[in-house]
Amino acid sequence: MNRILRIDPDNRLAVVEPGVTNEALQQALAPHGFFWAPDPGSAPWCTVGGNLACNASGPHAVKYGSTRDNVLGLRAVAGNGESFRCGTRTTKSAIGYDLTRLLVGSEGTLAVITEATLKLTPKPAAARTLRATYRNTAAAARAVARIMAQAATPCALEFMDALALKLARDHQPGAGVPVAEALLMIELDGAPDALDSAVAAVEAAARVDGLVQLEVARDEAQTRALWAARKALSLAQRSVTQHKINEDVVVPVSRLPELVDGVRQLAERHAVPIVSFGHAGNGNLHVNLLPRDLDEIERAYAALPELFALVIALDGTISGEHGIGVVKREFMPLALPAATLDLMRGIKSAFDPDGILNPGKLLP
Amino acid sequence: MNRILRIDPDNRLAVVEPGVTNEALQQALAPHGFFWAPDPGSAPWCTVGGNLACNASGPHAVKYGSTRDNVLGLRAVAGNGESFRCGTRTTKSAIGYDLTRLLVGSEGTLAVITEATLKLTPKPAAARTLRATYRNTAAAARAVARIMAQAATPCALEFMDALALKLARDHQPGAGVPVAEALLMIELDGAPDALDSAVAAVEAAARVDGLVQLEVARDEAQTRALWAARKALSLAQRSVTQHKINEDVVVPVSRLPELVDGVRQLAERHAVPIVSFGHAGNGNLHVNLLPRDLDEIERAYAALPELFALVIALDGTISGEHGIGVVKREFMPLALPAATLDLMRGIKSAFDPDGILNPGKLLP
Repeated sequence: MNRILRIDPDNRLAVVEPGVTNEALQQALAPHGFFWAPDPGSAPWCTVGGNLACNASGPHAVKYGSTRDNVLGLRAVAGNGESFRCGTRTTKSAIGYDLTRLLVGSEGTLAVITEATLKLTPKPAAARTLRATYRNTAAAARAVARIMAQAATPCALEFMDALALKLARDHQPGAGVPVAEALLMIELDGAPDALDSAVAAVEAAARVDGLVQLEVARDEAQTRALWAARKALSLAQRSVTQHKINEDVVVPVSRLPELVDGVRQLAERHAVPIVSFGHAGNGNLHVNLLPRDLDEIERAYAALPELFALVIALDGTISGEHGIGVVKREFMPLALPAATLDLMRGIKSAFDPDGILNPGKLLP
Repeated sequence: MNRILRIDPDNRLAVVEPGVTNEALQQALAPHGFFWAPDPGSAPWCTVGGNLACNASGPHAVKYGSTRDNVLGLRAVAGNGESFRCGTRTTKSAIGYDLTRLLVGSEGTLAVITEATLKLTPKPAAARTLRATYRNTAAAARAVARIMAQAATPCALEFMDALALKLARDHQPGAGVPVAEALLMIELDGAPDALDSAVAAVEAAARVDGLVQLEVARDEAQTRALWAARKALSLAQRSVTQHKINEDVVVPVSRLPELVDGVRQLAERHAVPIVSFGHAGNGNLHVNLLPRDLDEIERAYAALPELFALVIALDGTISGEHGIGVVKREFMPLALPAATLDLMRGIKSAFDPDGILNPGKLLP
């Protein structure tokens, strides 16, 4: 049962059961002029409960915050069997420990969420898309930092590396996907007559040394054409292999060039295709390993610890929104000091003393 | 020692020691074109550590989020003696329990923060101020809900009730503070040529039945004049009494009229002046009891439990940003179910098993 319990426009909130899909929620909110900021690529299938469990938020987090920033309160049943509620119906509160944001991203290991009060965002009236290509990733990363340093924050700021572009081109030869070392997709939203100045500001920020081409979509058709490369990518990857290993590492924006270069070296050293793309404004890249046979699968898994070590060395972390689950659990000690993990274990014990919730996940 | 360890514009972050004052931080950030979103009225004296401990954020939280939304990571020493770090240097992460936001608002009861990595916001180039008066609080609250339901979110949306206006008028007779049942101060920021449409949208939303007057400041002098009432209020209250009891309750925006009416009834029943004003966009009102002698002080403290009961009955909560500390501790069971408090106690035990950090605060 996908249930939306209440939409309350006056208070900019919605109360939902966690089983509702993200897309069903967005469709229910649209007539009220609102959306819920998190909208991962999997929106048609992923549930709001899943978004909450993994703090999974998608491309618009760069402007509207992650899932954690867009939840006000929860009802849940802790592992100790107790039902509880936490949070408020307001956007401000200072009454004790923030259990709401603690549960977001806890991957179901502390409590089973039974109801969520979500913070809504008014839908902007218009949007504008830009696409920029660069001679190298360093130039693209410099553009990202400059774009994020001015006040017209884009609602999406996506990156694709050379291999991602090649895959998209091979998959959709007629779609006009450019040849470049690095590409940025930039989307701005706002009031229609505010967008010209926002586009001008972002365009100025994006024009760094190393820019190859910058295009601004003038209408709906041009917008669709510019996004074609990014949209084609999911299917393009699937056409390469059925064995995609999907990582979602995060590094500070200024370290993106080192990440992309490092990933390229990894791909060469282990002789396995690796594509890098994703939410550059948050420094959150999907680094997808695309092994095509058993040998490559073996080499891909051998490359993973090096990828995570690289990310940690760049002051980043091993997951932006996919979470830890089973497969990254063994890498947690690489990402977090022992004292931090011990405190997490203490919290786990307080909520779930018998370890009955999602055992074997998240904590090593 | 007020120390700012690092300002990193490329990654939109600053690393600070918690003893730095909010104002010193803002001054250091200004040349880089950034600010830190939290800026309570006490900015010249309050420390960033204090802001973090109480999740205290001030008027701009309505657009830029509360303190919790503007911190990326922390270093701290838990009550168990262990140093640890948590969070990331990026705006997205999904690696285990969010200890960073758990510490924010924990009032020093879990750990001593030794270093904070703060998320910065680019300073908008321009701002515009509107002032609207209403025949009653219900009309003002309707305007607040309508303003918050459109996409041009103000960077401040402040409310003053009739008594707050009277105090400001008495204190500064020549400042042009209007006579009204309810007043809204609205500030919009953004790119200079985007502000006209934003002001128009907000003006349209503010024009509800019951509007008395709506003024838009055309220049710096008019802006100062419009803000005079709000600015005069702190000193005005002090001129009434030295015994101000400063509450900061929160209710959903749609319940603001019931809150203000209820507060007025409380003031009559207990025969003590109570002034209501504050961050209406967040539903966060400063409800200040102003007893002038010992009898009134006694009656004011008698009124407090009724105020908190009223707020809870309106689906609100007892503190938006001042926190619980000692004085509101006994009211926590009113605000939160026993199961929620038990989980908080479990977290306290995990971080501070011997109860050495800020004993007697926050948890009943």
